[in-house]
Amino acid sequence: MPEPLTKELGDRLRSVVGDAWVITEADRLLAYESDGLTAYRKTPRAVVLPRTTDEVSCVLGILSQEGVPVVPRGAGTGLSGGALADADAVVVGTARMTDILELDPENRLARVQPGLVNVNLTAAAEPFGLYYAPDPSSQTACSLGGNVAENSGGPHCLKYGVTSRYVTGLTVVTYDGKILEMGGFGKESGGYDLLGVFVGSEGCFGIATEIEVRLLPQPEGVLTLLAIFDRLGDAGRAVTEIMAEGLLPAALEIIDGPTIRAVEASVFAAGFPTDAEAALVVEFDGIEAGLPSDVERAIAHCRDAGAREVRRADSEEERLALWKGRKKAFGAMGQIGNDLMVQDGTVPRSKLTDVLGQISEIGARHDLTIANVFHAGDGNLHPNIIFDRSDADEVARVELASKEIMAVCVEAGGTITGEHGVGLDKRRYMSLVHGPSELDAMQRVKDVFDPLGLLNPGKVLPDPPDSVEAVS
Amino acid sequence: MPEPLTKELGDRLRSVVGDAWVITEADRLLAYESDGLTAYRKTPRAVVLPRTTDEVSCVLGILSQEGVPVVPRGAGTGLSGGALADADAVVVGTARMTDILELDPENRLARVQPGLVNVNLTAAAEPFGLYYAPDPSSQTACSLGGNVAENSGGPHCLKYGVTSRYVTGLTVVTYDGKILEMGGFGKESGGYDLLGVFVGSEGCFGIATEIEVRLLPQPEGVLTLLAIFDRLGDAGRAVTEIMAEGLLPAALEIIDGPTIRAVEASVFAAGFPTDAEAALVVEFDGIEAGLPSDVERAIAHCRDAGAREVRRADSEEERLALWKGRKKAFGAMGQIGNDLMVQDGTVPRSKLTDVLGQISEIGARHDLTIANVFHAGDGNLHPNIIFDRSDADEVARVELASKEIMAVCVEAGGTITGEHGVGLDKRRYMSLVHGPSELDAMQRVKDVFDPLGLLNPGKVLPDPPDSVEAVS
Repeated sequence: MPEPLTKELGDRLRSVVGDAWVITEADRLLAYESDGLTAYRKTPRAVVLPRTTDEVSCVLGILSQEGVPVVPRGAGTGLSGGALADADAVVVGTARMTDILELDPENRLARVQPGLVNVNLTAAAEPFGLYYAPDPSSQTACSLGGNVAENSGGPHCLKYGVTSRYVTGLTVVTYDGKILEMGGFGKESGGYDLLGVFVGSEGCFGIATEIEVRLLPQPEGVLTLLAIFDRLGDAGRAVTEIMAEGLLPAALEIIDGPTIRAVEASVFAAGFPTDAEAALVVEFDGIEAGLPSDVERAIAHCRDAGAREVRRADSEEERLALWKGRKKAFGAMGQIGNDLMVQDGTVPRSKLTDVLGQISEIGARHDLTIANVFHAGDGNLHPNIIFDRSDADEVARVELASKEIMAVCVEAGGTITGEHGVGLDKRRYMSLVHGPSELDAMQRVKDVFDPLGLLNPGKVLPDPPDSVEAVS
Repeated sequence: MPEPLTKELGDRLRSVVGDAWVITEADRLLAYESDGLTAYRKTPRAVVLPRTTDEVSCVLGILSQEGVPVVPRGAGTGLSGGALADADAVVVGTARMTDILELDPENRLARVQPGLVNVNLTAAAEPFGLYYAPDPSSQTACSLGGNVAENSGGPHCLKYGVTSRYVTGLTVVTYDGKILEMGGFGKESGGYDLLGVFVGSEGCFGIATEIEVRLLPQPEGVLTLLAIFDRLGDAGRAVTEIMAEGLLPAALEIIDGPTIRAVEASVFAAGFPTDAEAALVVEFDGIEAGLPSDVERAIAHCRDAGAREVRRADSEEERLALWKGRKKAFGAMGQIGNDLMVQDGTVPRSKLTDVLGQISEIGARHDLTIANVFHAGDGNLHPNIIFDRSDADEVARVELASKEIMAVCVEAGGTITGEHGVGLDKRRYMSLVHGPSELDAMQRVKDVFDPLGLLNPGKVLPDPPDSVEAVS
């Protein structure tokens, strides 16, 4: 059990954020015992919910004076355990920092607080014909601050790029309570790119309290098609051919047979044939007049690769129906088992089929159901393993399989994460992709922002080899 | 005069790179006395031209053992003095490292040496229907390593983004000769983003010896138009209206009246009317079928804003003719005066017209000819000041005007560089946009890679306030 805050420390924090926003009661702390990676659970010492940059600065100033470890938390949807707090740590959450501070249609910029839910930014920009491009699958729940921390991607990042491409300025509070301004004005602002290294630092460098992002004009038109395949490899070949022709779809997403069957068995049934082994969603957006020719060419590639059926959405309603199976895949799998390990790895596009075959073998060997959902266009795999965390043997097999999946991705010239971050879960795999010199450089960059190592401790970097706590 | 290398040091360097590639003769060193910013000139102690990563590592290992400052140099086209070397420094150049190490059309990636000239990568990718998107105006001369160091932009970066969006992996040699691998595999590789902070570090963190970049499919079609205006403000308004409608041109470039007259008076005459005050180049690319409607809308906006004439390119030949005045603008101005100070600043797009008016006033007040060429779409200004460096009074006025132009950009919510970097020239302006905490964080990030401060010393960051060498 966590040690309670002293009365004096609690009072000081309450005097900054107000009585209601320092959470210390055991039953309320339960809501913070895990993030989206539910396999790990720990209860923090307290949760503090500030409202402004100045409050974050005061809260961190107080906690750092006392040497209390701090774990930043956005919406808690992260999938690598990055928001998990040890019993000696206080969670500083951004849930109340949801304001849109400025919307500047003329310069296509927005300045927002970090707790703003991703999809709400697009909703606010819509009347101006604009939208915020990065669209994590959790976009109705995840917040911009978390997106910055994880450098989040999403289905449409194939064409539009991930979060780092859109963040143009940050106000950041470091562990000692200091406020730093990075970038801004819609452009890097000259000098070394602090912004570049902060985005994706997983809450280990500071808490972003104001975020300036680029908005894009809404595409004039969207056309979507769904192709059904009897063999996963055929879907992979269709992806290769579509990309090889020089087409640039906005999204290229595959869900595999086990995922199709999970979706169809759930309340999210989307009308997939349950004997199919792959469904490929291809979406094009842009100037209306240019879309039909692209779609025709994509359909031809799907048929050539062996698609048994290609459906095309001719209305927004039909489009949402085609996406339903993809968007609800995680939810559907969550209904099957007690727990879901959403893995995340990246391989060169050309190795997709081969790696998926190996992942299937790994599942069979460990007697686990592995269902794959993936951003095929940029080689970002999400093998999902359904398990029951009360079954110690199964948990051990999930661990083994996860490790083997990571090794297969790295072996194929890929890496251990595409968009979910390293967090707590993948520190142990960092040495698969980075040598001692690179890990040392990363540690020293971390030291620039957090020399005491008390902001989100135990995340991202593996313990040094001589540490007794080394994760095996 | 620089102190010559000792025979022993020279011999050790020659044993690594070969006798021909250690330059110490005074007349040959003259070629390295400045980069594209010719207002500053200094002669380095020697120039070493290695061929491989291992040779760079050995050369830096030897020089760092002796405590010799090192200045990395690409093609020497930089415009902020970033490649200028003091008399105690040795230049390590990448001119011989021009290999394309791997071209991978299937994954749309290329791995190249840093000395490869920008346009040569596109030439090599062309047979596969691919190209390298960032296109600095110097792209026929500048090299990929320099592009990485400066995070270079170019006319088409309005739509496609700057260098950092395309660099997916780097092999880097730090001052002590250590080799670091950053990113790779077409994706960030997990952990803190060393790649993100290295790109744009202006040769102060290490020398990139292998560069992996993303390639794009060539757009199916391109349509270009050129609009002539009697008033610069009208051209600015056309830009605002084009962007406000949600059109996304590949390029939106303006050259002003003084530039038009410089071009027409030069061997690069492009057929502009010399009494015009602005020429606006608008280019759209993408799916052929979608282009005409965009172009029609852009033409309408130009006419509404008061264009006296709009020319449209209907062939590749006509397209190159329309671009000629823009592409050759620097060359034309170089013919007028002895020296050219190419300034570089960024302002929010909405402030363009106002800032250009202020820059014009600054020129008049200091009796200087300032000609503006700019990436209007993303608010990146290039005020060019023609001067004679043998005229001390004029040089002093150029300095004053440059400083005032920077202040005007910052005052408008912009910044001191868009794409040319800080280098030597703009260190003195860094405190206009960054506070002490941010400058301190930048210094400490620099220390991670170069704790002795001997790689490209005296660049980017201002001297600390207590330094006697502080630039006023």
